[in-house]
Amino acid sequence: MKTKSRKVAVVGSGNVGSSCAYSMVNQAICDEIMMVDRTYDRAMAQALDLSHCMDFAGTRTKVYAGTAGDCGSMDVVILTAGANPKPGQTRLDVLDAAAVITKEIVTDIMASGFDGIFVVAANPVDIVTYMVWKISGLPRHRVIGTGTSIDSSRLKTLLSEVFSIDPRSVNGYALGEHGESQFVAWSHVTIGGKPLLQILEQHRERFSSLDLDDLARKTKDAGWEIFTRKGSTHFGIGSALAYITRSILNDEHKIIAVSAILDGEYGQTEVCTGVPAIISGGGIQELLELNLNEQETAKFIASCGIIRAGIQSLQLEETV
Amino acid sequence: MKTKSRKVAVVGSGNVGSSCAYSMVNQAICDEIMMVDRTYDRAMAQALDLSHCMDFAGTRTKVYAGTAGDCGSMDVVILTAGANPKPGQTRLDVLDAAAVITKEIVTDIMASGFDGIFVVAANPVDIVTYMVWKISGLPRHRVIGTGTSIDSSRLKTLLSEVFSIDPRSVNGYALGEHGESQFVAWSHVTIGGKPLLQILEQHRERFSSLDLDDLARKTKDAGWEIFTRKGSTHFGIGSALAYITRSILNDEHKIIAVSAILDGEYGQTEVCTGVPAIISGGGIQELLELNLNEQETAKFIASCGIIRAGIQSLQLEETV
Amino acid sequence: MKTKSRKVAVVGSGNVGSSCAYSMVNQAICDEIMMVDRTYDRAMAQALDLSHCMDFAGTRTKVYAGTAGDCGSMDVVILTAGANPKPGQTRLDVLDAAAVITKEIVTDIMASGFDGIFVVAANPVDIVTYMVWKISGLPRHRVIGTGTSIDSSRLKTLLSEVFSIDPRSVNGYALGEHGESQFVAWSHVTIGGKPLLQILEQHRERFSSLDLDDLARKTKDAGWEIFTRKGSTHFGIGSALAYITRSILNDEHKIIAVSAILDGEYGQTEVCTGVPAIISGGGIQELLELNLNEQETAKFIASCGIIRAGIQSLQLEETV
Amino acid sequence: MKTKSRKVAVVGSGNVGSSCAYSMVNQAICDEIMMVDRTYDRAMAQALDLSHCMDFAGTRTKVYAGTAGDCGSMDVVILTAGANPKPGQTRLDVLDAAAVITKEIVTDIMASGFDGIFVVAANPVDIVTYMVWKISGLPRHRVIGTGTSIDSSRLKTLLSEVFSIDPRSVNGYALGEHGESQFVAWSHVTIGGKPLLQILEQHRERFSSLDLDDLARKTKDAGWEIFTRKGSTHFGIGSALAYITRSILNDEHKIIAVSAILDGEYGQTEVCTGVPAIISGGGIQELLELNLNEQETAKFIASCGIIRAGIQSLQLEETV
Repeated sequence: MKTKSRKVAVVGSGNVGSSCAYSMVNQAICDEIMMVDRTYDRAMAQALDLSHCMDFAGTRTKVYAGTAGDCGSMDVVILTAGANPKPGQTRLDVLDAAAVITKEIVTDIMASGFDGIFVVAANPVDIVTYMVWKISGLPRHRVIGTGTSIDSSRLKTLLSEVFSIDPRSVNGYALGEHGESQFVAWSHVTIGGKPLLQILEQHRERFSSLDLDDLARKTKDAGWEIFTRKGSTHFGIGSALAYITRSILNDEHKIIAVSAILDGEYGQTEVCTGVPAIISGGGIQELLELNLNEQETAKFIASCGIIRAGIQSLQLEETV
Repeated sequence: MKTKSRKVAVVGSGNVGSSCAYSMVNQAICDEIMMVDRTYDRAMAQALDLSHCMDFAGTRTKVYAGTAGDCGSMDVVILTAGANPKPGQTRLDVLDAAAVITKEIVTDIMASGFDGIFVVAANPVDIVTYMVWKISGLPRHRVIGTGTSIDSSRLKTLLSEVFSIDPRSVNGYALGEHGESQFVAWSHVTIGGKPLLQILEQHRERFSSLDLDDLARKTKDAGWEIFTRKGSTHFGIGSALAYITRSILNDEHKIIAVSAILDGEYGQTEVCTGVPAIISGGGIQELLELNLNEQETAKFIASCGIIRAGIQSLQLEETV
Repeated sequence: MKTKSRKVAVVGSGNVGSSCAYSMVNQAICDEIMMVDRTYDRAMAQALDLSHCMDFAGTRTKVYAGTAGDCGSMDVVILTAGANPKPGQTRLDVLDAAAVITKEIVTDIMASGFDGIFVVAANPVDIVTYMVWKISGLPRHRVIGTGTSIDSSRLKTLLSEVFSIDPRSVNGYALGEHGESQFVAWSHVTIGGKPLLQILEQHRERFSSLDLDDLARKTKDAGWEIFTRKGSTHFGIGSALAYITRSILNDEHKIIAVSAILDGEYGQTEVCTGVPAIISGGGIQELLELNLNEQETAKFIASCGIIRAGIQSLQLEETV
Repeated sequence: MKTKSRKVAVVGSGNVGSSCAYSMVNQAICDEIMMVDRTYDRAMAQALDLSHCMDFAGTRTKVYAGTAGDCGSMDVVILTAGANPKPGQTRLDVLDAAAVITKEIVTDIMASGFDGIFVVAANPVDIVTYMVWKISGLPRHRVIGTGTSIDSSRLKTLLSEVFSIDPRSVNGYALGEHGESQFVAWSHVTIGGKPLLQILEQHRERFSSLDLDDLARKTKDAGWEIFTRKGSTHFGIGSALAYITRSILNDEHKIIAVSAILDGEYGQTEVCTGVPAIISGGGIQELLELNLNEQETAKFIASCGIIRAGIQSLQLEETV
């Protein structure tokens, strides 16, 4: 008889990793969570704290501490360990530090016999996801970055407030880099399936105060708004990680904007960036290629260029 | 100190009503459910059976039996009591029987001092919803029919199977009558926000076997396919009722295709039909007017005409 | 890469089977549900009806129709197909008909290569569970009957009403036969961990109207109270099935009163009866042996005797 | 028409408050959450971060920032703002600082017209809860401290690991002070309704390594184990707060060990301490008086004495 315990490792037990684990415990997304951290005591403390939620939760999730070397039997490894940007720094500034950390961790995880799916949140997430792909040698559909999932959620939250609509009835994506060069694909934003641009055109007066550029800017800057006020952003991204992981473990085939390694899609190769993807039990089932308009296409190309430059600066040795 | 127990009456304790209640118990949607039925013993048996689920459910929902006259303190009254069509009959055939039943029940409910929101599933649902509005004297936004919510769900389920996508990543509506004259608004069907018609145009070969007319027909006929095989359809519609009720009780502002009384929207008046609506704590917050294409508009007008004819045949006395 | 879709077959697509499936869909307990029925069209209709709930549910459960011969890859087979008692009949009256049906179905399921866990609700459930064990040749811990899980839930619901306490804060069991000879183990009923008998002794006046014999009788007769009024009891038992199945699939190690094959526990062998058991991913992990008092022990022995007589009347050929 | 939005204010937006809010968002416990903090920017940042979870959550919870003066329309105010103990300090050491903070906040909240229920987690929680009662002038059943709810959860988690049982199938309480003088009421610990002490007596060999004193010590020290390793404990206590709040908002009548103001129960007055209580829509419905054995009674009296001494040292002016 086979057992089917769903096991998730959270590598990096700081605010993001522990919030993600807490969300998974609250939503009963998996059966086991292994907390991993460079500082083992921190992983242990998070696991202990999280384990005390069991009695209050809907189901029983076993939470314990482990190491990168214990990841062999995991279904999903969530990678949050990295080098966090400090105020004033961009996500790219922390690139070199991230490269060293990522190489070490992923090598250890693969050495453990891991044969599952990586979900990466460590920043700069597009580049780190690419690194994880190269270092792990896994097929590209099994390495997923959180990318613009969180930015897209922020966009939908903003729109849901402007229009007083449930964010789940809004569809829309921030695309490209999870960073400065990202953009909103306004041509594909819909509210209840109706294109936003049509709504604005038909109700000019009613929504005259709405400024799309301002919304895009707020979407992009939301993370910093939070970061500068509390020194960390972890609940939104923790939820994004839990959501992607649930779509994998439940084989949901949900379409989510994630950071994916492109191999011809959108005319791009050798880059990892935020695009809508179907997330299933096997990872990324397929990418959804939107028909971006000219302006959006230019922005997408530019954003890919920035990410690619970051990737190339790393001179990753090929392992595949 | 105010108490905020969320109370829902389910009037009609047959398969649809009891399935809806079971769904609400399983999802912990409200605090109290009162089962009502012409045959009090049936309401009591359903309440008793449902109450035995408490120990297995995520939260405690009190379920008990009552009468139409006990609806005064309810937040939502779900109306499933009606005259069910027999094989061979259309939903309109049962109109006269439905009119008598509806008048009696709604009069009793309003006499109890009910001041909440009606959610109507009794067939022919568009006409019965209109009747409930007229008889109750409530503002139109507080009388909601399930309309094409279930047909839209069937459409999304079909598309989710064809494209192997989570139905929650598909958006689309069957509009108009919950009956023969309904149609799918293909112009507004999106998959992950991308228009379906664009996808089909770009991937002709891959989806060459896909026949939209056939899908629309299957959407429309799904209910009968079930009905002829098991004599009732109740799980889908029970879930639709629970979903609408949850959007009300949680003030979710979700956009759902429901049967709404039109007062100028889509160029229509004096009719109740399936259109997308924002469902909030106050009922229908606003209707979403899609830019239907010419062909769809013609179908919509025709469908409204059929419903309106049904309404007029009833010669409802004005009560407002 | 291994896939871990959790698959459950519901064999018997009548009221009990379909309610159980509906509960599992509403609670997102598994990834796939296969409906099976002697009448394939009924299984298909239930699957179709249930599939239309996806859009309204928290996650995506694939529901489809199949046959006993398709059960090879299932993790759990829920057996509800049987011969239902008619008013006036006891559960034992339908024994012979049940034996024929069970033998045929279980043989087909085992021939498909099934290597999971049976959860049995078909009546007379204690005897049918025993039959399933004998016919399947599976180890006893992988054949679980619903037994007195539903009676225990009814007991807790009754107590929760009397004491105005959440049923999840009440603990207690009906033990023995899911039938006439069952009894409540009052010595082990606790409210918030405090023995009920102590509460009653300390608050004689306050609870003077409480009659334990009457409560035990109501517990035992609740099924018939429902059955005589609506011709079926399915929500409570459907939830019990979903609850046991969830405890298996999530490896929860919950303690539930189920019908288990005894091999020395409680001094009994060659019988299957309602006792508390730890339900885990492997089925019954272990039985919990309560220290029943003298009177309860006598009732337990008597109840086992009745079930054993039923089993022996079947002259099951040994298959193990 | 009445609206029934369920509103919760979280006063104190640090780790505990924000974790509690995150848990409530993930579990869809209420409709609105207002984050309050001495540093308004921090409340705003937490609200913003939490609002980005909406798109990933099961339902839509509006999260926003506010002040103590905005609490007038809240159903529940969760009080986490306080003076946190530093390593080496006991919870009582921070008493004076806590008194000042609590007085100011509660006075502001009551001035806003608040007429709901306080749930208090600020430490030393038993004393702060007492202060909130005195300062607010609310009836005692509407002021609830988290007390030993978290310690009881830790106890159940430990036992669930030792016995490999779902913690929800274990019942037991740590009682008295949420602090050094707490104790486990072993006489009332049950596993599946069976007294733990009976299990240990019957299975001496099997559980020979089990040391109850050691378990009680681990229960009491779990918080410090976490605190010393990560500088904060917030997930367990955040879940306890969410659990108590849910039992209030859903009128669940769950029995939870909380810090309650005693007025004769357990022979105690003028003290607030951890005892099992029925939590309903009105707050504490009633306390459950366990029949503690002699040794436990002595510990309970001693623990109450310590808390009472702390209370008396504050020389609270009477406001009622």
